[in-house]
Amino acid sequence: MADGRRLLADKTPFPADLEERMRRQFTFLVEVDQLKSILRQSPLVSAERRENDAEHSWHLAMMVLLLAEYSDEPIDIGHTVQLVLIHDLIEIYAGDTPLYDSAAGVDQREREVEAADELFALLPEDQALRVRALWDEFEERRTPEARFAKAMDRLQPLLLNWMAREGTWKTPGVTADDVRARKALIGDASSVLWEAGRQLIDEGERRGWSGSGGPA
Amino acid sequence: MADGRRLLADKTPFPADLEERMRRQFTFLVEVDQLKSILRQSPLVSAERRENDAEHSWHLAMMVLLLAEYSDEPIDIGHTVQLVLIHDLIEIYAGDTPLYDSAAGVDQREREVEAADELFALLPEDQALRVRALWDEFEERRTPEARFAKAMDRLQPLLLNWMAREGTWKTPGVTADDVRARKALIGDASSVLWEAGRQLIDEGERRGWSGSGGPA
Repeated sequence: MADGRRLLADKTPFPADLEERMRRQFTFLVEVDQLKSILRQSPLVSAERRENDAEHSWHLAMMVLLLAEYSDEPIDIGHTVQLVLIHDLIEIYAGDTPLYDSAAGVDQREREVEAADELFALLPEDQALRVRALWDEFEERRTPEARFAKAMDRLQPLLLNWMAREGTWKTPGVTADDVRARKALIGDASSVLWEAGRQLIDEGERRGWSGSGGPA
Repeated sequence: MADGRRLLADKTPFPADLEERMRRQFTFLVEVDQLKSILRQSPLVSAERRENDAEHSWHLAMMVLLLAEYSDEPIDIGHTVQLVLIHDLIEIYAGDTPLYDSAAGVDQREREVEAADELFALLPEDQALRVRALWDEFEERRTPEARFAKAMDRLQPLLLNWMAREGTWKTPGVTADDVRARKALIGDASSVLWEAGRQLIDEGERRGWSGSGGPA
């Protein structure tokens, strides 16, 4: 996978006298500009287009700032924010895997681990380890912060779908029960937010915004 | 200014039984979706379009995570990240004021304070005060965290302009000295990053990527 990938920073190499550690950091920071070009399924509220991963990550961070009080366990806001900021970076090389696409989900973990290995290796080693540790923490959901970060990752598109009066809830073959099942892990972090999320899904179902989206 | 503004959340009102405090938080979180639609002058590296404020805010947060070690004074990463996440929210109502547009700069502060008053008032009062305190801290630059956050706000477009081999450096009437003057406050937070920033500006000038952009 690493063979022959051209880095964005190679388009305009940094001056030769830039110090090596900083060059690696700048190279990584330029490479992750691509997060702005990875489209998700969710529709924006403010414009007629789909959301990209950078916008999504920023939005999750805002949610952490404002909804942390609903976590069932105390969480460190600054740390949780870091988890959501980096959680989708691996999609730069692995691509976005839609929540309701079970076929793409089959080798998702393998593709994402490969992507993490390659992308984080651009950083100085100590920082590569730190970012990898954050990503592993998010994926494993063993800390209250990681559970809350993941809950935001499920709740945010739910808000966007509500606003769009269907959005990805109308994915062919997806029922309101499927939506509830995929979103249930909000409840692992916050019983209050999961109750609110369920209110939106239930009311959306009553209004015909989910389910009966046609054949899968 | 507040008279008759239609909120985004009014497009699809939340269910009537959603608890009031959470309703205000969700309303705010939907309203700030507009940050994704506010275009800046800076060109992306990864696509042929301009960057929006949400993408920019996310990118600054990544820079804080990875470049905090260069701060001349110790900083709290989690807190600095919160400053950059919220620093442009007021542009949702005040609009973006380009760095090299002195005419728009005249009443910028007034417009932005009005915007902050209106936007943050959507939140529960305790959170409105907290977000306002973060924004004031960023604007006043009296803490090491705020100085570093502001430095990232100056350094990030510099990286994008470097990659674009001119970008906003070619704004009509703007010289390389203007660029250096506008970017100098990077040095208030980090002498090392300001040295690197100056290397990029100086080398850009040598290559003809800044200045002589025609009449103002």
